[in-house]
Amino acid sequence: MTIETALTELQSILGDGLSRSPSDLEIHGRSETHFALTPPDAVAYPLSTQDVAAIVKICAAHHCPVVAWGTGTSLEGHALAVRGGVCIDLSRMDKVLDVQVDDMDVRVQPGVTREALNTELRATGLFFPVDPGANASLGGMASTRASGTTAVRYGTMRDNVLGLEVVLADGRIIHTGSRARKSSAGYDLTGLFVGAEGTLGIITELTLKLQGQPQAIGAAVCAFPDVAAAVDAVIATIQMGVPMARIEFLDTASVMAVNAYANMNLPTTPHLLVEFHGSDNAVKEDAETFGEIAKDYKGSDFDWATRPEDRSMLWKMRHEAYYAILASRKGARAIVTDVCVPISQLATAIAETEADIAESIITGPILGHVGDGNFHAILLIDDTNTTERSAAEKLAHRMAERALRLGGTVTGEHGVGLGKLEYMQAEHGDAWAVMGQIKRALDPDGIMNPGKLVQQN
Amino acid sequence: MTIETALTELQSILGDGLSRSPSDLEIHGRSETHFALTPPDAVAYPLSTQDVAAIVKICAAHHCPVVAWGTGTSLEGHALAVRGGVCIDLSRMDKVLDVQVDDMDVRVQPGVTREALNTELRATGLFFPVDPGANASLGGMASTRASGTTAVRYGTMRDNVLGLEVVLADGRIIHTGSRARKSSAGYDLTGLFVGAEGTLGIITELTLKLQGQPQAIGAAVCAFPDVAAAVDAVIATIQMGVPMARIEFLDTASVMAVNAYANMNLPTTPHLLVEFHGSDNAVKEDAETFGEIAKDYKGSDFDWATRPEDRSMLWKMRHEAYYAILASRKGARAIVTDVCVPISQLATAIAETEADIAESIITGPILGHVGDGNFHAILLIDDTNTTERSAAEKLAHRMAERALRLGGTVTGEHGVGLGKLEYMQAEHGDAWAVMGQIKRALDPDGIMNPGKLVQQN
Repeated sequence: MTIETALTELQSILGDGLSRSPSDLEIHGRSETHFALTPPDAVAYPLSTQDVAAIVKICAAHHCPVVAWGTGTSLEGHALAVRGGVCIDLSRMDKVLDVQVDDMDVRVQPGVTREALNTELRATGLFFPVDPGANASLGGMASTRASGTTAVRYGTMRDNVLGLEVVLADGRIIHTGSRARKSSAGYDLTGLFVGAEGTLGIITELTLKLQGQPQAIGAAVCAFPDVAAAVDAVIATIQMGVPMARIEFLDTASVMAVNAYANMNLPTTPHLLVEFHGSDNAVKEDAETFGEIAKDYKGSDFDWATRPEDRSMLWKMRHEAYYAILASRKGARAIVTDVCVPISQLATAIAETEADIAESIITGPILGHVGDGNFHAILLIDDTNTTERSAAEKLAHRMAERALRLGGTVTGEHGVGLGKLEYMQAEHGDAWAVMGQIKRALDPDGIMNPGKLVQQN
Repeated sequence: MTIETALTELQSILGDGLSRSPSDLEIHGRSETHFALTPPDAVAYPLSTQDVAAIVKICAAHHCPVVAWGTGTSLEGHALAVRGGVCIDLSRMDKVLDVQVDDMDVRVQPGVTREALNTELRATGLFFPVDPGANASLGGMASTRASGTTAVRYGTMRDNVLGLEVVLADGRIIHTGSRARKSSAGYDLTGLFVGAEGTLGIITELTLKLQGQPQAIGAAVCAFPDVAAAVDAVIATIQMGVPMARIEFLDTASVMAVNAYANMNLPTTPHLLVEFHGSDNAVKEDAETFGEIAKDYKGSDFDWATRPEDRSMLWKMRHEAYYAILASRKGARAIVTDVCVPISQLATAIAETEADIAESIITGPILGHVGDGNFHAILLIDDTNTTERSAAEKLAHRMAERALRLGGTVTGEHGVGLGKLEYMQAEHGDAWAVMGQIKRALDPDGIMNPGKLVQQN
């Protein structure tokens, strides 16, 4: 077997850095959502770019699949080894290599997590803003083009990666981008590898933009009488040009799950969670403007949390909302949806989705980064109940179709992975074939994360 | 001849829409800078995407080169037909197709210029922020990944194009991106075509992000005693987190050229031109903060221009600086440089460049978008004087090498074209070969703007 031959060679160069223990294979065959266990044939633990290049070269010689692994927090099964092969676990490449305070950038290895980076940066007055909730690895976040709560202000990984080091399918090591803030020097390869989900190469280093810690931060939780009022308040806030750092939506079902999980007492109606960053005066002004808009849409009174501990609790609650929703039904698994639509279509998209879920047998709380038009329904199922799974899959399917009909995308931030592959043709048309042409040009033998993103042979 | 056969076929479908008049060929063989006249064999004037696709299909069948043309304001000879063939002049595809005020986006044909778009948008309260100075076409601006004075606040074309319609080398029409504000649905093809300089396809429609007109705008001109003081003031402003909308540098030679051209009386020292956008209070606060920083670095007192006509004059002066510099020496042509470095290296980069120019026989005023670390020396030469040309080329060469040594790029915003092709290997290393692999995958016969961007056969 070609994979076996590759593994024998890998063992000889990696020694203990290659694991075939059943528990290791199982850990690297799991996903946080509803996908079946899909273990690789082995797990490699490189310590350096050179290690990664050596592993890929051996795999290339034997046509052995290579799948990169960060923290395994992806929600679409990106890192599942659907054709077996070697899982390259990058968690031991976890060094912050170079912080440049004057230039507000940092060079990191791919296994550094966003929380570890921000801990390391604490003394510098700088921070890395992209925040998908999970404490994901930065390599994984780049590969899935992650975003999250702060994208409305600071952009997604697309906007925050200045350059990359990448090991290609033939083991070549390339560097994309530079430390300059902008460039017109040829094809944007950085942008091509960000969001490529490991299908074109493996990211072994990232240069990231950093932001200055704002002088002041204000955050608040605001209850609305119904979904339409909350969404209309978001649209009005955007159109007033108020520079939100975060604006998050939780529907009533999400609020109930959070109340139960975190022992809180939020009113059981839809909520917005907002945050503003800036100077003391700017935050005060933005908060006042938002307060007036919220009042216009019958939002509740609210207190501004300007103390760090109050804000932490607020965003901890938001970040744990997914786990709170999972915990709301014992033993449930989730089919997680991730549509993003033009903001003018957001109220329609959420209302149609809520009505569709209400008519089904499925519980599916809705929450999302509504400043970008991005929201998720967390469809809870008993994994062993085929009726439920089928009903949830139908709901997810209609959400994806709805997003496309309304001019949006089937995945705002989670990526394609296994879960969204079936929609790529519908979303992209002939442009999907172009992605396939690029894939074949850079990975002609199809060893890089095979079975993902492009049309399969 | 294959090109002749293609032209005969094109004539039959385009009629008057295909021109071979010597004046038309000459107009489309010129560049605004120092490149020699390089006319195409014919100029096609499509009126629709279908026209472009039909033209490209015929050219593909006969291996006839295809070069797109917007307004011809590119500074690196991008649109020169170095291998002959058909110049596709997109200036008649100049419709604003769809303004979506709620979503703050617009769909346009590629021949719409940025000024025409902003005129059309005037009643909506929205504007398109990317401003490279010249009244370029939006298709051309996307193709060169243009930016300019406002990139420090609003980003470059990379950040402001949501989606594209592109005619590929085989005549297929694809659509990239969507109207959603973000997406993780596969490779970022929009980002790949932005900055591809027409070597992968021809952009036939663009969906662009728009911005709300700020409530208040404040702008000012501030003189500094020397370059270092001006640059240090920029760095301090960035590090204080002051959200500049524009921050432009003019050296003493540029100021003198502007004074002469526009009949002004600026003090003959280096200057910064700054602008802030926001609420009345925010602009006031930002202006005060900048005023304090400027004072720390011995900047002059200045008045804030908040009246639109005063601001217009200020930016007209900045935009005309290139022409003012050209006019400062009768009959001169320019070799325009365009380096961009990490901000911490900006003072070094400018100082070394100034010293190098001072030691040469060349006049080369320096100006730039210093908030991004991007600056230009406009090297003036008598085109017929080989000693001058050679001296200027050597200066430009050393600037490019200096930018790379300091961690930057040889082109911040003008693009590769003909002028920067020789630096691509040095800037990108093996990543340049990857660009070539992508080019060959999408344009195997090399008909799209041949002779540009990738390694030549």
